[in-house]
Amino acid sequence: MARTLKLTIAYDGTDFAGWQRQATDRTVQAAIEDALAPIEGSDRVVITGAGRTDAGVHAAGQVASVKLQAAMSIDTLQRALNATLPPDVRIMAVDEMAEDFNAQFAAKRKTYRYVLWSSGVVPPQLRRYAWHVPHALDIDAMNAAARELAGTHDFAAFQAAGGDVVTTVRTVFQSQTARIESNASVRPVLSAAGVLATAPGDLLIYEIVGSGFLRHMVRNIVGTLVDIGRARRTVDDMRAILASKDRGRASATAPPHGLTLWSVDY
Amino acid sequence: MARTLKLTIAYDGTDFAGWQRQATDRTVQAAIEDALAPIEGSDRVVITGAGRTDAGVHAAGQVASVKLQAAMSIDTLQRALNATLPPDVRIMAVDEMAEDFNAQFAAKRKTYRYVLWSSGVVPPQLRRYAWHVPHALDIDAMNAAARELAGTHDFAAFQAAGGDVVTTVRTVFQSQTARIESNASVRPVLSAAGVLATAPGDLLIYEIVGSGFLRHMVRNIVGTLVDIGRARRTVDDMRAILASKDRGRASATAPPHGLTLWSVDY
Repeated sequence: MARTLKLTIAYDGTDFAGWQRQATDRTVQAAIEDALAPIEGSDRVVITGAGRTDAGVHAAGQVASVKLQAAMSIDTLQRALNATLPPDVRIMAVDEMAEDFNAQFAAKRKTYRYVLWSSGVVPPQLRRYAWHVPHALDIDAMNAAARELAGTHDFAAFQAAGGDVVTTVRTVFQSQTARIESNASVRPVLSAAGVLATAPGDLLIYEIVGSGFLRHMVRNIVGTLVDIGRARRTVDDMRAILASKDRGRASATAPPHGLTLWSVDY
Repeated sequence: MARTLKLTIAYDGTDFAGWQRQATDRTVQAAIEDALAPIEGSDRVVITGAGRTDAGVHAAGQVASVKLQAAMSIDTLQRALNATLPPDVRIMAVDEMAEDFNAQFAAKRKTYRYVLWSSGVVPPQLRRYAWHVPHALDIDAMNAAARELAGTHDFAAFQAAGGDVVTTVRTVFQSQTARIESNASVRPVLSAAGVLATAPGDLLIYEIVGSGFLRHMVRNIVGTLVDIGRARRTVDDMRAILASKDRGRASATAPPHGLTLWSVDY
């Protein structure tokens, strides 16, 4: 009797060619499927991710669904998977679900976070997880522009070439930028991030919550936000780019390593 | 006319065989000296670190002094060094000092931080920077034991074999443990650390500030604190171990990757 499980997955995307299984490159989906196969006693187990992440993009709460025959407890399964998986991918939780649960189709909202470091020198411990933008950034302008994206819009202007979706209309529930000061109260936490007390830099976090995302959508938005923060473009430009539905109008795509798929809601 | 500079240095110790230059292995001192040599137009530049860190130990604010003839501004020098250095070591600041400044002998206080992750699964983005202790830890007991170390004591019980110092007496100004909850207010910061909102784990940080440290002293203290947190030893044991001056009494050395040389005060 097959049962359906929900896996909550974290990974450091640095050394992965993205989520989706490929013929030769190292991917997260393949790593997990290959760890599940011997547990299931099968040549191949197929998991369904909530969404694909690009090469270099990280996850804190990616979700996948899988149908298994294996009768072991979810705790034992989690331990067995983590014992087999490489240390840059971890199963953070395993939940028993209704038989028809599908992590892709049942996803209601996804949250992405993008981390920027805006001082002159990036602390080495952050170099894999933050885009280093060594310029003063106008956080208020960025935040005003970010808020323009909330609502249901045609996001065609922020879709990478090669997207093959039926519609480019998506709903953004939340879109905002926050600055984390290197002050005393957050220092112990920043410590864990390897951020220096001695570094006078700013950590900026862009968070977007939406019904779904087009290919490179978050990274294209962040590229545009950074140009606005650098005063190379204006908040009005963000409005105009969105209305144009023309990819040629948005700024260059931000690099993948600042991006984390933070969570998926069902 | 030689001038004396102070370099404030951050590094990710994961891929370094420690601070001190060695014949063949990759070290932080050698990386910086090799980056300075062409700037100085010399075969060999020698820098003096505030202290040596072991293989795998990180730094947020290591300090080194160096005498240079090169006349360039400190900003230009910092940029030139960071352009040459590998991304896992960064010069966070360069300061002009009095001619006789010596980063080793002038150091008044050093601060070390040790990061522990105590839930069942370690988020991949923390794996290089936190010791994963998958056990419930009694933070109050750990903190009580940590405080026993404050003051001027003979720390021989926490010195690794092979230490060749004249005296094992050191002064500890501060020794405490803090728990960082994965709650809403710190989440944006934890995001940068790659810590999961979905991870119910605890980040524990041990901080020790002292006049100087013996070989492996912080890691031997942390190993003992973790045994106390796991109720395998007591706060009284900490007192007895310290008084014994016998290395055989302390717990096993904690691994290097949880440790960061946080700052050096002059």
